[in-house]
Amino acid sequence: MAKYARIKNTGKPKVVIIGGGFAGLELAKSLKKADVQVILIDKQNYHTFQPLMYQVATAAIEADSIIHPFRKVFDKQENFFFRLAEVQHIDTAQKLVETSIGLIRYDYLVIATGATTNYFGDKLMEENAIAMKSVEDAINLRNTILSNFENALQLDDEEQMNSLMDYVIVGGGPTGVELAGALSELRKHVFPKDYPELDFQSMDIHLIQSGGELLKGMSKEASVKSLQFLEEMGVKVWLNRRVKSYDGYTVTLDNGETLITRTLIWAAGVTGNPIDGLKPESILKGNRVQVDVYNRVVGYENVFAIGDIAAMVTTENPQGHPMLAQPALQQGTLLGKNLVRLFSGEPMQPFVYKDQGSMATIGKNKAVADLKLFNREIKSQGFFAWLIWMFIHLISLVSFRDRLVVMLNWGWNYFTYNSGNRLIVGHKQENIPITETITHKTVI
Amino acid sequence: MAKYARIKNTGKPKVVIIGGGFAGLELAKSLKKADVQVILIDKQNYHTFQPLMYQVATAAIEADSIIHPFRKVFDKQENFFFRLAEVQHIDTAQKLVETSIGLIRYDYLVIATGATTNYFGDKLMEENAIAMKSVEDAINLRNTILSNFENALQLDDEEQMNSLMDYVIVGGGPTGVELAGALSELRKHVFPKDYPELDFQSMDIHLIQSGGELLKGMSKEASVKSLQFLEEMGVKVWLNRRVKSYDGYTVTLDNGETLITRTLIWAAGVTGNPIDGLKPESILKGNRVQVDVYNRVVGYENVFAIGDIAAMVTTENPQGHPMLAQPALQQGTLLGKNLVRLFSGEPMQPFVYKDQGSMATIGKNKAVADLKLFNREIKSQGFFAWLIWMFIHLISLVSFRDRLVVMLNWGWNYFTYNSGNRLIVGHKQENIPITETITHKTVI
Repeated sequence: MAKYARIKNTGKPKVVIIGGGFAGLELAKSLKKADVQVILIDKQNYHTFQPLMYQVATAAIEADSIIHPFRKVFDKQENFFFRLAEVQHIDTAQKLVETSIGLIRYDYLVIATGATTNYFGDKLMEENAIAMKSVEDAINLRNTILSNFENALQLDDEEQMNSLMDYVIVGGGPTGVELAGALSELRKHVFPKDYPELDFQSMDIHLIQSGGELLKGMSKEASVKSLQFLEEMGVKVWLNRRVKSYDGYTVTLDNGETLITRTLIWAAGVTGNPIDGLKPESILKGNRVQVDVYNRVVGYENVFAIGDIAAMVTTENPQGHPMLAQPALQQGTLLGKNLVRLFSGEPMQPFVYKDQGSMATIGKNKAVADLKLFNREIKSQGFFAWLIWMFIHLISLVSFRDRLVVMLNWGWNYFTYNSGNRLIVGHKQENIPITETITHKTVI
Repeated sequence: MAKYARIKNTGKPKVVIIGGGFAGLELAKSLKKADVQVILIDKQNYHTFQPLMYQVATAAIEADSIIHPFRKVFDKQENFFFRLAEVQHIDTAQKLVETSIGLIRYDYLVIATGATTNYFGDKLMEENAIAMKSVEDAINLRNTILSNFENALQLDDEEQMNSLMDYVIVGGGPTGVELAGALSELRKHVFPKDYPELDFQSMDIHLIQSGGELLKGMSKEASVKSLQFLEEMGVKVWLNRRVKSYDGYTVTLDNGETLITRTLIWAAGVTGNPIDGLKPESILKGNRVQVDVYNRVVGYENVFAIGDIAAMVTTENPQGHPMLAQPALQQGTLLGKNLVRLFSGEPMQPFVYKDQGSMATIGKNKAVADLKLFNREIKSQGFFAWLIWMFIHLISLVSFRDRLVVMLNWGWNYFTYNSGNRLIVGHKQENIPITETITHKTVI
């Protein structure tokens, strides 16, 4: 018989939240004064501020600045309980969550498991590509990039050398665009100083986008300008192209052309992080969970879903809301208030998404922003957008201390282009051995 | 036939340095203007500022602040070449270093491989203990401590729980003393906030020292005061005790008493990091390499050794100099100057160790320092020593940026006791499974 996880019983209704991303974190905070027991389950002991992950991957800031231990965030919230565990199954009949540390009882369950990288079933891609969904992925990428250059120093075969120095980024959303821009700045200002023996003229950065424009979902102006910025910075952008296969060395595109790289970064799609035990009819395409306007999972009384995993299908949003930080934060906050209303017999308020705009930064003084302020749309590209981007990201970081450290790093980088986090510590991607001789015919 | 590593041939005499610790780094810097080719080989791409490693292990500062990429340190030094490689063997007849990336030719070879943890041949200890010699060890310890508490929450058996909450540190030198002090402060100010469900009254910190005093090598005052500080802070200090064995759970002392812990930190001794290929007669006890007063390895013309690995045996120092940062730094600097003298036919200067004193910090406002300033000995314990300790460590950090970040962390911790680096990222120690039932009779 399965055992129960040990959690102090406070006698209050138990709100169990699975996942401490933006949505789960906001919900837990929003329940601060509620007369409940909040139990947050996550497989990491920290929250990740995902929008700055690409800066960790490109050695601009420390990983520690964008991840924050849950126990510290909530050390003053008495109704909060954290458990480091993996969820295996939920049993909605018994109101139980089955986890790696035992069974956890709930009165209200909130699924906030977010999204995971979508390889669209391509196993070979999953094996060989580097993802960008966790801070460990970002550290992996940083270590891989730096090791590539160390290894490239030892080669004289041109193709082999290019395989280590060239990068292919798949996906022209914010992550892909920001990574491509950051790599391009490193190629110009940092790598040549670190590796004077290598010729960075021959380092190519490819960005592959399946659609006809970058930053789909943003304004036409933002798409056009981000493409222009990247091309000015020497990034090779391939629009209307898909990757057919990648074996860890050769990237084959849908038109048959090939690229050679040992480092393909997959930022091309996400899918809901599935959870076992819900009725199949509540799971929509893309592994998202269908919820009503109160974020209640369709078909359940006391099970909710918020953030990327939740698809609130309405006539306005037939696909649900975009899988972004903003809807997650707003749903988390509202659900906290709605649960309090529910306990006191008041009617819950339906969720209305307030899109405050989006932005992406491509390089120093170069960003694109579509803002919605006071019911006005402000579109900006360039220096002003870049200032706003920095301001918004700084104030969004979880702690004041992190803000200081990141600000310090950014200030430093602005004037010196040289933050000094180019360290190979921990895991890196192990691809096919570098000594192996591979000959290919078609190379772009 | 073995291949050569690819390194640009500048036509200058090649000074190959193995190891980028304090000694190797200083030597390379000291050769900045010399008409030579400096080739530094290290198995990491960064220099580690070891004196602050215990602060990484106790989540006070980020790992990135105390490690620094060699390529960045030397990005303005044109005669400097770095290679990330492991050295397998040196062939002094052919003047070749055999490495994981191929053969490297030298005209002058400098061994600066430092020291490694000495388990005195105890394989079981090596398997089960956590060392404190690298930043990866420190991260491992941080992750292990935090995971221990997460796991302890799930136990009700008292002995099992204690095995996760108690710590045994072996070795009463600076590392052991500083770690014990830092853990004790976390126990008082931080852990109870993070884990309100655990009772930290029952968390024991044991420090085991084989001799009759702590901080051997420092003044009597420092030894006595550090013991007093630690005991006031609730650390259980065991003097004149040795560890006989440790199986990952039970620590058996030389008098037959036992302690239970899953986390034993081994800071009890170091031994020279051996290098293969030197004449056996040049290797002394403790794996150190015997050098003359010019740091030249006895029996060789063009092979030198500096830092912890070098034993300069004189009548004053029958055991060689202490294995500390100061002799390493001073030998590195002097050898750089001496090599220049050698090339220009001038006589080399003999090494004279200038002991500037030593210090250790036990807690907030609590440090011990024996300083030698202007030929006067200044002994201080408490607040003033602690200020000096901070000042010296801050100015010794490699880069200005690191100094800022560390200062920020320290300032933050001073007022809040709460730096927020308590993150479980990357590797942690995997000991015997926690579910396993073990019963022991004698527990102190």
